[in-house]
Amino acid sequence: MDLAKRARKAANVLKTLSNDKRTSALKAIHDGLRDRKDEIIAANKLDLQAAEKADLSPSLIKRLDLTKSGKFDSMLQGILDVAALEDPVGKITMARHLDDGLDLYRVTSPVGVLLVIFEARPEVIANISALAIKSGNAAILKGGKESNNTFTIMAEIVREALSKTPIPTDALQLINTREKVSELLHCDQYIDMVIPRGSNELVRSIKSNTTIPVLGHADGICSAYIDASANPQMAAKIIVDAKTNYPAACNAVESVLIDRAAVDTCLGPVVEALVDSGVTVKVAPELLKQAQSAVPAAPEIVEATPKDFDTEFLALTLALGPVDGVQDAINHINDHGSHHTDIIITESEQNAQKFLRGIDSAGVYWNASSRFADGFRYGFGAEVGVSTNKLHARGPVGLEGLMSYQYLLKGNGQGASDYLGGGGTKNFKHDNFEATGSPI
Amino acid sequence: MDLAKRARKAANVLKTLSNDKRTSALKAIHDGLRDRKDEIIAANKLDLQAAEKADLSPSLIKRLDLTKSGKFDSMLQGILDVAALEDPVGKITMARHLDDGLDLYRVTSPVGVLLVIFEARPEVIANISALAIKSGNAAILKGGKESNNTFTIMAEIVREALSKTPIPTDALQLINTREKVSELLHCDQYIDMVIPRGSNELVRSIKSNTTIPVLGHADGICSAYIDASANPQMAAKIIVDAKTNYPAACNAVESVLIDRAAVDTCLGPVVEALVDSGVTVKVAPELLKQAQSAVPAAPEIVEATPKDFDTEFLALTLALGPVDGVQDAINHINDHGSHHTDIIITESEQNAQKFLRGIDSAGVYWNASSRFADGFRYGFGAEVGVSTNKLHARGPVGLEGLMSYQYLLKGNGQGASDYLGGGGTKNFKHDNFEATGSPI
Repeated sequence: MDLAKRARKAANVLKTLSNDKRTSALKAIHDGLRDRKDEIIAANKLDLQAAEKADLSPSLIKRLDLTKSGKFDSMLQGILDVAALEDPVGKITMARHLDDGLDLYRVTSPVGVLLVIFEARPEVIANISALAIKSGNAAILKGGKESNNTFTIMAEIVREALSKTPIPTDALQLINTREKVSELLHCDQYIDMVIPRGSNELVRSIKSNTTIPVLGHADGICSAYIDASANPQMAAKIIVDAKTNYPAACNAVESVLIDRAAVDTCLGPVVEALVDSGVTVKVAPELLKQAQSAVPAAPEIVEATPKDFDTEFLALTLALGPVDGVQDAINHINDHGSHHTDIIITESEQNAQKFLRGIDSAGVYWNASSRFADGFRYGFGAEVGVSTNKLHARGPVGLEGLMSYQYLLKGNGQGASDYLGGGGTKNFKHDNFEATGSPI
Repeated sequence: MDLAKRARKAANVLKTLSNDKRTSALKAIHDGLRDRKDEIIAANKLDLQAAEKADLSPSLIKRLDLTKSGKFDSMLQGILDVAALEDPVGKITMARHLDDGLDLYRVTSPVGVLLVIFEARPEVIANISALAIKSGNAAILKGGKESNNTFTIMAEIVREALSKTPIPTDALQLINTREKVSELLHCDQYIDMVIPRGSNELVRSIKSNTTIPVLGHADGICSAYIDASANPQMAAKIIVDAKTNYPAACNAVESVLIDRAAVDTCLGPVVEALVDSGVTVKVAPELLKQAQSAVPAAPEIVEATPKDFDTEFLALTLALGPVDGVQDAINHINDHGSHHTDIIITESEQNAQKFLRGIDSAGVYWNASSRFADGFRYGFGAEVGVSTNKLHARGPVGLEGLMSYQYLLKGNGQGASDYLGGGGTKNFKHDNFEATGSPI
């Protein structure tokens, strides 16, 4: 497909450009968007009117709206923030003398071509454009049809800004038809990574329609396990935070498992705190009576079905059930969770250790809310997404997640046949050394 | 599929076991294979007889043969070498204070379940078993039907050895039917990575039949570019080494590109050295006469077709053609190569820099043979394979390629709502610190 091929060609050029050139392109994009704010806002209003007419959900309309409280300015600031990050390209992560005059370096390099698919939020255009160019990657961006007017004008501005810089304009291509996406999902010779930014349905549908690696997570079924020795107040606080701080987030807690030995001390305080925060607590039949007697006549306490423990509620609802100690909790979470972020609440270092070692998830937390699983909270400077993949990037992903590496070998005519193992007599030295700056 | 599910269960246990336990299991496998060498050799002889009867190729029979010159002993030694490697599990690769009493660690962890598919070489069983257990991964191994007798007895010995250790026996499962493989290639909920060890056809067929990430490379079309300022003797030496040291290897050179400005100085010496080494040189029409006049009446010099520059010969044959300088070479290699390892031969630092930055391959070499692209030559201690993927592991892959990582967060009851951005007023500190030993 021509547009993917052109993106690949642009990536091959972009890869060779200095940080100064890449960073000044971000500045050009920033200035273009700033200078033509009025046009963008006008286009955005058209999208908003159409969305209201089409009776789209208030949350979608809110995401679409660029005019609200500082959203446009923080979008602009975000570009400058990414521009100011340390250059992720060409970092030496290993330097080794293989022999005299034969030096091996492992150097970070861009992944290549990204396909980014997002839904209503038009500010993602600015965000992803900045992340891609900063990291030396070309990107193909596909926006949602709800934001088509905003998307079109922003795309034009970005392209025009790039045309005044050394960055090939094909380094950022913006498309808006669904048909093109399904073609692009088959272009694995030109596209290196797909990044879906949107609903679970979006991610799931993309994952099942491409052989290109997908960075992201379809589900966020995070669990909290309350161990026998848990501090009841701490358990209540962490679980309320993990559920209510942003219930629609992927790092919100969906299942609470309680050791039978902790039921007497913790069930009451936890259920009471959840009910007080307006959370519907779906309690497994074995614990229902005790929960109901802890908070009498609360309509928020209802009986859970087994399916509730495999559900991402994305709302002020969670499932709560008993387990027999930490190993049972580990088994349950490894089987039913989505390998995102899971919590143990305990005063026992031994049980914490067992849990943290045994859980096969991107985040394993001891006495802290799962809501910390986030690039900004981890201090990554920028967040590309959250990954539940185990290969390449896992967990919250910063700019690093857009980087690959290459091995660079510098010799003066050596052949493998000079060395032992290749027919020769010389030995390898394999001495690591500190390398700063560029290897050549 | 039950066997994949059992592997996943075993992986969840294996992940929690100490290096001592994993290492002692390697010792048990080593001892089992050593003590029952006679039985293995007897089974291997049956496979060899069957192979000869079936008129299989001499190179396949050679790969199948465990009795030859020290192969069995070096297989045993290989297990001990892997056992002696540093523990790859639980290494802290980042430690950061998010706030007082809220510490984030990034810790290496096993990938999970590996599916390893190999052809004739029965010693791969020992090699992969050692690498998998050492790195805390469960593995499902599928051998070729030619080695069925050897495979069956070795599988029995490995299983028996594991049954005497704390490692679950399902951590290593050995299968030998092709039908099971195609089922397993669809078990992406249980299997994390597929590692094909064998021919390009094997790798290609697996890549196109699974959505599980595949570690490997289907093709090895490595190129050497002779720049205007190349030293002719060095060019000849490197290219002869890169072609003849092991012509069937993926890191052997297949295409030679020569700057038109280097033809007068380098074409003669390079072609002569190749012909002297018995290499068939397929020369592009534009250079054919000059090549023929450099080495008169050599039947090894033949005319190349365009297709030859997209061919992995895997034999004493290569294609040679002209380019217009370093940028033309970069474009050709990025379009026609397989992104494995490519060489520039030049005395110009500027052109070397341009080439090394512009080439989108796992290895970018300056004045050295592509045959160095190998885990042992890089000093990795063990080689899992060579990857032309850009995500996760790239280039020669050591034990590191079998590792993922997890984020471990240790708090004392913090919620995101305590902090700025989550509704609270506290600031994150984000101070990195040096961490040694285990985070808990």
